[in-house]
Amino acid sequence: MAKKNYAIGIDIGSSFTKLALVDSLGNISNMQSFATTSFNTADDFIQTLILNIQLIINTTDGHVLGVGVGAPNANHFTGEIDHAANLPWHEVIPLKAKLEEMVDVPVKVTNDAKVAAHGEMLFGKAKGMKNFSVITLGTGVGSGIVVNGELLYGHDGMAGEIGHIVAKQNGRPCGCGRKGCLETYASVTGIINTARKIMRANNLPPFESGEELYDAAVSGNPMALEIFNVTGQILGNILAQVHTVISSEAYIFFGGLANAGEFLLVPTRKAFEQNLLFVYKEKMPQIMVSGLQDKNAAVLGAAAMMFGL
Amino acid sequence: MAKKNYAIGIDIGSSFTKLALVDSLGNISNMQSFATTSFNTADDFIQTLILNIQLIINTTDGHVLGVGVGAPNANHFTGEIDHAANLPWHEVIPLKAKLEEMVDVPVKVTNDAKVAAHGEMLFGKAKGMKNFSVITLGTGVGSGIVVNGELLYGHDGMAGEIGHIVAKQNGRPCGCGRKGCLETYASVTGIINTARKIMRANNLPPFESGEELYDAAVSGNPMALEIFNVTGQILGNILAQVHTVISSEAYIFFGGLANAGEFLLVPTRKAFEQNLLFVYKEKMPQIMVSGLQDKNAAVLGAAAMMFGL
Repeated sequence: MAKKNYAIGIDIGSSFTKLALVDSLGNISNMQSFATTSFNTADDFIQTLILNIQLIINTTDGHVLGVGVGAPNANHFTGEIDHAANLPWHEVIPLKAKLEEMVDVPVKVTNDAKVAAHGEMLFGKAKGMKNFSVITLGTGVGSGIVVNGELLYGHDGMAGEIGHIVAKQNGRPCGCGRKGCLETYASVTGIINTARKIMRANNLPPFESGEELYDAAVSGNPMALEIFNVTGQILGNILAQVHTVISSEAYIFFGGLANAGEFLLVPTRKAFEQNLLFVYKEKMPQIMVSGLQDKNAAVLGAAAMMFGL
Repeated sequence: MAKKNYAIGIDIGSSFTKLALVDSLGNISNMQSFATTSFNTADDFIQTLILNIQLIINTTDGHVLGVGVGAPNANHFTGEIDHAANLPWHEVIPLKAKLEEMVDVPVKVTNDAKVAAHGEMLFGKAKGMKNFSVITLGTGVGSGIVVNGELLYGHDGMAGEIGHIVAKQNGRPCGCGRKGCLETYASVTGIINTARKIMRANNLPPFESGEELYDAAVSGNPMALEIFNVTGQILGNILAQVHTVISSEAYIFFGGLANAGEFLLVPTRKAFEQNLLFVYKEKMPQIMVSGLQDKNAAVLGAAAMMFGL
């Protein structure tokens, strides 16, 4: 009997690195996890990563197709992690090359948002879709855009940085050095800033976290609902502009702010439709939350890269 | 000896319809042309088109791979021309189906901007590029975007309508019913309106046409140069936003306004770079004029669709 096919999915996060064996249906086994921060050098980190990969390969009866890795600032074309601000080592790390030296299967490396798109296409709500986008709403805002069934990388691997579309001329200062980028409004950090402004303007104490803001919305707090409305208006308008470029079948929200569900989706959909070019309303795209929230989405998505995509 | 391969390229324009035999190197022969406006019904027009196609097929010694058609409001997926405002017949015309009924080779139909991208990829400045965009700057503004070597159609065939990205909130009224769309500034019509405004504000007589404006720029007229500067600033800024989504290797200008050359390119490049996210500057995309201006670009592009793309 032919051996069953597996991929190893690896999620390199700022706090923890997780890896596991994943089958083609998205079943996870052999999950390993260790602190990303407990290594002085990237080389030490990579040595431990390799030991964990070899351990998984050696203990499976199946056939391991390859290793997929999702990491911040990772470039699919070069296989490098490029000056990641959220990792302990800020240099250029040739991750793919170092792993392939020691591990006898192919390795693919890409960034978090593109990993999320791979995962959604194979295991989530984008099954069967050829043109869709996953929008990651976390500390920042990113996107993984799929066109004709393939990830849109652009000529340099850097396509999909929609968090840096300018949403407001001379708006909030962004970490990128410019002003008014979408992610200064529609990330978790962005909405907390919006909340602070709105609460201060109303002489009310600020919400301390996204969870507190969400709980307030659940209990019907009008200020909390307004904060989600303002955020959804900006996000929906920018997605309507993005839609004129790529015309996705669906925009799938993933990450911390996506947990707000309908509180964010309703005003986003409204603004999207209000700002949308008429011709697109004949085949209205869906705006929805990922099917992989709270699952091991990053590990699943990283593994998904190896299953024939 | 094997027969040489050809495609028939057809350009359905608002005034004239042109068709010709094109070889894989872009050599044109058997050019036919007739007035689009001299038919009462779309069916009469299609009958004449079919006779012309059959004439070309019957008089060639080579092998005709198929027929490519570029037309306003044409949808690649449905093969229909959909309520084209610039054609004499405003209904839905099932062009592909009607042609394939009578002509014994495959037929592909798509819109003008996507045809331009096909032409540029096979015969123009985008040879060898896998990720680039052709921006058509004519009566309106459109784009043909190529991703991973394939045209970006989106889920409904309507991707690439970048002329309808909102460049200015509450800006100029657009034919689409919204306000401030890019094409109200960066089309031939748009720049003429900008010229009118700037000349009026300076108590000067208006430029009557794009040619007159161009001639004034050539002779160093500071008002004319300013009009191109203002237009390039808007276009360059929006292209910088579009770049964060698709990260093309090149943005290639085609159509009437592209004839302005450096008068438009210089301020566009400047605004593009000023508004560009830092990471993209490592692999700076090119902004340039099409290699097919003044050639039979629409016929070449339509034929290019049949040469294995």
